[in-house]
Amino acid sequence: MISRISMIGLTLVFMAGCRQVTPQGNGGSTGFDLVDSAGNIRKPSGYRDRYQALGAYTVLKSTGNEMHVVYASPGTAEYYRKTGKFADGTVLVKEVFGTDHAPLTTGDAHWASGTKVWFLLIKDVKGRYPGNPLWGDGWGWALFKSDAPNKQVAVDYKKDCFGCHVPAKATDWIYVQGYPVLSPK
Amino acid sequence: MISRISMIGLTLVFMAGCRQVTPQGNGGSTGFDLVDSAGNIRKPSGYRDRYQALGAYTVLKSTGNEMHVVYASPGTAEYYRKTGKFADGTVLVKEVFGTDHAPLTTGDAHWASGTKVWFLLIKDVKGRYPGNPLWGDGWGWALFKSDAPNKQVAVDYKKDCFGCHVPAKATDWIYVQGYPVLSPK
Repeated sequence: MISRISMIGLTLVFMAGCRQVTPQGNGGSTGFDLVDSAGNIRKPSGYRDRYQALGAYTVLKSTGNEMHVVYASPGTAEYYRKTGKFADGTVLVKEVFGTDHAPLTTGDAHWASGTKVWFLLIKDVKGRYPGNPLWGDGWGWALFKSDAPNKQVAVDYKKDCFGCHVPAKATDWIYVQGYPVLSPK
Repeated sequence: MISRISMIGLTLVFMAGCRQVTPQGNGGSTGFDLVDSAGNIRKPSGYRDRYQALGAYTVLKSTGNEMHVVYASPGTAEYYRKTGKFADGTVLVKEVFGTDHAPLTTGDAHWASGTKVWFLLIKDVKGRYPGNPLWGDGWGWALFKSDAPNKQVAVDYKKDCFGCHVPAKATDWIYVQGYPVLSPK
């Protein structure tokens, strides 16, 4: 009996370990692990390894070029391809890098260098935090800057975040055209 | 006894499932599953979901801008951060996209559109295929084009691939500066 119970325990340990890291997980429904009861959002650790990169935008501008790399919680892409939607609890991390560039063998190449800021979104289909100005339009919105990487500094998503997303209203405020992995295969 | 054996079986099934998808796997040592006994290389399926994106280069050129997104087999980044090396069997897939661009809210934004070609590398520390002209300098080298995505078309890595990698000799022929996830944390 003891052996059988220990085997069950072993199985559960492996299941738990699996669940933490699988890219084909449960549609990202664990995003609320990053949120406290008042709706305050923290940034996940290890997202470069544990999350799936959806794609990148390179933005050329006179104030300094940037590369925006977007990571999504495990299962996001698989769920989106099936449904055309982001699952409740999906976490998107947009890491905004400065860039370096050089004439490499392929041409005038631009690549990510130091991180400037992180924008973070958590999909909320239930309107869980109606009194919190960082939640609305189907998402929780957060901003972290490189001088204090774990300090959420956005105050009001409508002022601090939303303006840039308005043109992407038809795709749930997300610029999905830059994310090939979301396209049907 | 039967129950105990079935539990062991169940555990192994979960372990196997885990292993296939974990991004923190065994350093990529399964890359040779993609190679036949003569050294012929095939392209892995599902790498956008199963592999880890290392980073991207946006290349501006008069013949058409490109975005190069590089995906690595599970465990590659973790192993590299620990050792400064790519593990035997590591698979790198460089998907070369054309780009679209538009003045978005962040600036002159460029993003990946249709795939043009895939370059694929498999790390080989043992010199397994000395008579095959697609293996040498510590890697197996392969090229696939979008008109026949599963047909390997490189003939001789020294002519078809290597020239572009020579400037990256000091980092095992890989342009690691564009892959933030490889940097020590």
